[in-house]
Amino acid sequence: MTVAEEIQALGRKARAAARALRTLTTAEKNAALLAVAEAIEAAKPEIDAANAEDVAAAQANGLSPAMVDRLTLTASRFKSMVDGVRSVAGLPDPVGEELWRRERPSGISIRKVREPFGVVAVVFESRPNVFVDTAALCFKTSNAIILRGGKEAIRSNKALAAAVQKGFARWCGPDRPLPLLDAVQLVQTTDHAGVRELVRMPDYVDVAIPRGGERLIRAMCEAALIPVLKHYKGVCHVYVDEGADLDMALRILDNAKVQRPSACNAAECLLVNAKEANAFLPRVEAWARERGVTLHEADADWGREWLSLDLNVGVVADVDEAIAHVNAYGSHHSDCIVTRDAARAAKFQRDVDSATVYHNASTRFTDGGAFGMGAEIGISTDKLHARGPMGLEELTTYKYYVSGDGVVRG
Amino acid sequence: MTVAEEIQALGRKARAAARALRTLTTAEKNAALLAVAEAIEAAKPEIDAANAEDVAAAQANGLSPAMVDRLTLTASRFKSMVDGVRSVAGLPDPVGEELWRRERPSGISIRKVREPFGVVAVVFESRPNVFVDTAALCFKTSNAIILRGGKEAIRSNKALAAAVQKGFARWCGPDRPLPLLDAVQLVQTTDHAGVRELVRMPDYVDVAIPRGGERLIRAMCEAALIPVLKHYKGVCHVYVDEGADLDMALRILDNAKVQRPSACNAAECLLVNAKEANAFLPRVEAWARERGVTLHEADADWGREWLSLDLNVGVVADVDEAIAHVNAYGSHHSDCIVTRDAARAAKFQRDVDSATVYHNASTRFTDGGAFGMGAEIGISTDKLHARGPMGLEELTTYKYYVSGDGVVRG
Repeated sequence: MTVAEEIQALGRKARAAARALRTLTTAEKNAALLAVAEAIEAAKPEIDAANAEDVAAAQANGLSPAMVDRLTLTASRFKSMVDGVRSVAGLPDPVGEELWRRERPSGISIRKVREPFGVVAVVFESRPNVFVDTAALCFKTSNAIILRGGKEAIRSNKALAAAVQKGFARWCGPDRPLPLLDAVQLVQTTDHAGVRELVRMPDYVDVAIPRGGERLIRAMCEAALIPVLKHYKGVCHVYVDEGADLDMALRILDNAKVQRPSACNAAECLLVNAKEANAFLPRVEAWARERGVTLHEADADWGREWLSLDLNVGVVADVDEAIAHVNAYGSHHSDCIVTRDAARAAKFQRDVDSATVYHNASTRFTDGGAFGMGAEIGISTDKLHARGPMGLEELTTYKYYVSGDGVVRG
Repeated sequence: MTVAEEIQALGRKARAAARALRTLTTAEKNAALLAVAEAIEAAKPEIDAANAEDVAAAQANGLSPAMVDRLTLTASRFKSMVDGVRSVAGLPDPVGEELWRRERPSGISIRKVREPFGVVAVVFESRPNVFVDTAALCFKTSNAIILRGGKEAIRSNKALAAAVQKGFARWCGPDRPLPLLDAVQLVQTTDHAGVRELVRMPDYVDVAIPRGGERLIRAMCEAALIPVLKHYKGVCHVYVDEGADLDMALRILDNAKVQRPSACNAAECLLVNAKEANAFLPRVEAWARERGVTLHEADADWGREWLSLDLNVGVVADVDEAIAHVNAYGSHHSDCIVTRDAARAAKFQRDVDSATVYHNASTRFTDGGAFGMGAEIGISTDKLHARGPMGLEELTTYKYYVSGDGVVRG
């Protein structure tokens, strides 16, 4: 069997599974998720052993310590992975929600209702917990899922897939439709051709979600014949306006830069209004020294995603120049204005072309949990379908249910 | 200037125009649309002359009568084109609509608000009125638009573009920001490389909407680095269930097949439950003779989009077989069950994977107007972002406006 044949076979099975999934009630899906959580817990020894092999191989192959860290399923990561499945079981089910209903003069009655996509393909890199997190979110939304993980995590992923499969099969019992068992599938080969094939089967896969770096995402978009819900990068800005509360500005900057510099919603660039530069920049320098932040002022660095204790700093003449800078160098993710002026705040929020635009609040709030979505499968920097944090609702499409009494079009 | 350079220059200008458009109020946009409608009316002689040249050239080049017909701007098409612009001015503006608002325990206040995409690229074929129709819808939603029409309509399109430009420039006057003038742009070259370039500039174009045949759409999807909102084809089914009201079934079938066979929501296939075959098929044959419909029963034709007075006919054992047939051979557009049984209707509507699923109503209702959307830019057979009829709302994305009093993440 070639890689393409393997992937196509998974696709065919996923499509059949998606049709079977659509027949499950919310209560059934929740019960299945709890059974899966239990099965993962029961399989901890096998999963740990597989993960230890992956980690040993990664170390032997000289992978970076950061990579090895991401690969490692520590006890606390294991626990939060299992807790995550249980918490998804407790979330409201968006499938079947009526978005609107209209009675038309023609005599038809229209209901717009949330529906699953059908089949979702998730391509991820070294973190094995992504397998379980995304499988749970897709299952809850009645989507079949095909997962393709990194080569370095293949043993861990296979062990996790086996545990999920076991829990799910036990819950299904002998009487449920067989295709259901293919609701969660792992691509067994880690040949790179598999990723390409996954995004070129519009009959079998409805949407692809990459969970990885920019290179992976670009390669997938270039090959894709299906929509790709993606998050390129987070180049977030904090703009300190004329007359801003500088204590507040420093508090927001500190949170946005230092609390978790590796997060996509961390600030990468500070813009200061020229009228505040003399008052604010010395305070920023003192703060940077105290917090171990390196400040950068070179033009070549605009737009750089540091993901570390580094920060670009620029001075702008006014809010218009700040907006132009953010739109030119940002990544349409999360940007903030610190100001006391309501009109300039409104202008900045309207004209900055980003998923989330803040007024007097830290960019770090961009997150499914902080937004009250209950869960997050990623943050979209696209504008179509989903923008910003993606929760369960963003894993659904909709369908029109139209009924009449034999009515025809005049 | 190469084709790529021309297209990129249009893209840069469109992005700047999109930013300027975002500053217009609804009243300003409506006034501009009325000025454009007036300018098109005033330019009727030039537009008619250009269209006559296109038509003459098309005839000289031996284009099919159907193609020449689509190209021709008759007086009534001209009038409905101008009326269309005025009617778009009268529709509610979705931009700025608050989708929801949340006060979070963290102290942030979140507003989810409808926003324009930014820049839309529309690629269309021979109908010049598409230029004006889509430009008006995009303008109303504060989107800049780049239009690329067919080679055979280039003179008509240039005349329409000049009229739109003139009306818009007059409304803008000397005081509005200059980039606004690039809100509606026509690609001047009709080199095919231009289409490819249009869908490969993610920095300048947010979404592409093809208005044309399947070949054009497939070529665009293959090349695209941006989302493509598309409508492949309409292979719509009518399934007549066991115990159905056969008079109703025939009435719906007649409307779905005969009223406008060239429409994408016309029926292409009739499926009859085996238990009704003896009673219903003779009536279908009599109807077909009377209405000039050719019936087809060859397996090779399943899934064919006839767009003519031709109809595939099949017999299925039950609703499950009907659902499987529709999902295998349909185009996820519009399908109908005629039944008296509520449970089977619900099953068919849930399990048929199409944008619109009808119970006892004609598939011909799938249309922005019939759905109460006021206008339609197309019908999506995709599942992401927009599914089914696309009106003004479907030409928008959303953005999160978050505000606080200096609040940071704990």
